[in-house]
Amino acid sequence: MTLVACIGGGQLGRMLGLAGLPLGLRFRFLDPSPDACAGEVGELVVGEYDDVDALVRLADGADVVTYEFENVPVEAAIGVGAVPGSRALEQGQDRLREKELFRSLGIPTARFGTLAETGLPALVKSRRLGYDGKGQRRLDVAGAVDDGEIAEELVAFDRELSIVGVRDGTGETRFWPVGENVHRDGILRVTRSPAVDAPQAEAEAICTALLDALDYVGVLAVELFEVGGRLLANELAPRVHNTAHWTIDGAATSQFENHLRAILGLALGSTAGARCVMVNLIGSVPPIGELLALPDARVHLYGKAPRPGRKVGHVTLLDPTDETVDRAVALATAAL
Amino acid sequence: MTLVACIGGGQLGRMLGLAGLPLGLRFRFLDPSPDACAGEVGELVVGEYDDVDALVRLADGADVVTYEFENVPVEAAIGVGAVPGSRALEQGQDRLREKELFRSLGIPTARFGTLAETGLPALVKSRRLGYDGKGQRRLDVAGAVDDGEIAEELVAFDRELSIVGVRDGTGETRFWPVGENVHRDGILRVTRSPAVDAPQAEAEAICTALLDALDYVGVLAVELFEVGGRLLANELAPRVHNTAHWTIDGAATSQFENHLRAILGLALGSTAGARCVMVNLIGSVPPIGELLALPDARVHLYGKAPRPGRKVGHVTLLDPTDETVDRAVALATAAL
Repeated sequence: MTLVACIGGGQLGRMLGLAGLPLGLRFRFLDPSPDACAGEVGELVVGEYDDVDALVRLADGADVVTYEFENVPVEAAIGVGAVPGSRALEQGQDRLREKELFRSLGIPTARFGTLAETGLPALVKSRRLGYDGKGQRRLDVAGAVDDGEIAEELVAFDRELSIVGVRDGTGETRFWPVGENVHRDGILRVTRSPAVDAPQAEAEAICTALLDALDYVGVLAVELFEVGGRLLANELAPRVHNTAHWTIDGAATSQFENHLRAILGLALGSTAGARCVMVNLIGSVPPIGELLALPDARVHLYGKAPRPGRKVGHVTLLDPTDETVDRAVALATAAL
Repeated sequence: MTLVACIGGGQLGRMLGLAGLPLGLRFRFLDPSPDACAGEVGELVVGEYDDVDALVRLADGADVVTYEFENVPVEAAIGVGAVPGSRALEQGQDRLREKELFRSLGIPTARFGTLAETGLPALVKSRRLGYDGKGQRRLDVAGAVDDGEIAEELVAFDRELSIVGVRDGTGETRFWPVGENVHRDGILRVTRSPAVDAPQAEAEAICTALLDALDYVGVLAVELFEVGGRLLANELAPRVHNTAHWTIDGAATSQFENHLRAILGLALGSTAGARCVMVNLIGSVPPIGELLALPDARVHLYGKAPRPGRKVGHVTLLDPTDETVDRAVALATAAL
């Protein structure tokens, strides 16, 4: 029986488990919380991510170790030989190095660095440990930018897109259709796939450059801004990604299954996708009966306790009407 | 958090769990084996099905108790208030009562009873605890039929079909497309859905009569023989059924999800289905890489130790070519 170990036991780990159990895989997760929701689909090792003893227990007997979030301590990832490798983590954990990587590969980005480089207004972000809009502030007049921060040009983008791809150990790559994303308060609310008039080839070229440069194995997501028909890379996530959750129900092979296939040396599956809209459930869960009553809806709850701003589930709507999307968004919003 | 308890922790329980976890449900299973494969998706109570203490532990705090096989002791099912109710179990456990139920509802069957009633050749089956062809013998000349046995006319059927339906507590029913089934050595090997020129309306009428007569809540399967364009009911199974495993990948709502919806009082989901072929993996698992390489294949392994005649997984092929079906059957057969 093949054992997959995963650093992090949140909903991404849980969905990796749900995708892998039908392949006969078993799972073990490391998470600081004894309530980590991935514990329902595998063994849970409770410990901090830099706790060497816990990491040893996580990796003991595992056929592969992976991770479900990008703030895994790099030393921990190296110590257990995690896949994708530590290079992607190092880049993904530091917004400055991430942007420099984009630049080194000729991938366009917003201007970044000091305020002299970005101009005003600018977004000042902590270089490390920011997610879901946390650790960000806007500067309209000149102000201090710490060493631990990076200034970025405030981009008046037309829309936010993302490309999610997978690369296996032989260098083969596949990409799901580009999604169009709506954030509010820094948290993803809705992804529509494929994006209308999606710049698929351009987005795939950006993702390919990153996958190859990092000699990456597994699923990688790149968030993009579209500005005047041009793509700017905003950030990468070296893991399965919220903007591709629709692939569970709407793609021939989900991002979760293909991540597992890649890290286990199995052939990648087709990434062909149907027209879908995914709506995140944030903070609390609407009545399940109302979610299930949405036409062609697939409901995914994570078994997490409700808490403001917390992702507790998502609903995927297959080939929905605008009315169904509106209804799903209203349900998700009313539950806040 | 809603807790579903299930008597039996085999692959059917496991697939109920995999369908229910995304709905935010939790699971607890009762099984005599500490290795029961449903234990990977919920809590496992190890005990015999008639062990009152174990049954109490199973049902403690559960929102609903269900079962995944038809040989649950009826007293045990009654004791924990299992859904579907005990009537379906009583009928399903005894081939004579099952056939008498069919007759009482005007549902055609093969002749049954004594050899005088069936003629020769006949199949003699144990009335109780038979499955997958076990407990059956063929009589070509007159012989003894015990009290614990039932004789059945040996039907030269044209093909074997099955109808799987679901009924909720309000009496609403839904049916998946009729499947065409191929057995070998008494074990299901292949289901094709929908069956070519499927007698959908006639099969639904049979299933509806049974669902209503039993005031049934949950998924019910009826195995049918087609003889000269006419349907004969062979047996019923008061549970999710192997011939509808394709619904996980090929139907809008799987049999597992709709069973859970029904027993939890949630609205039933659409049973619309795509063209699929399901191939059972019996006895051992072919190399997973070869299974995953089949075009549009969805692989389901149950995490069970291989053993001759044991169902260890299945593969669903979506809208396959004949060549793909042949290849899948060859893989499944070569692994034996």
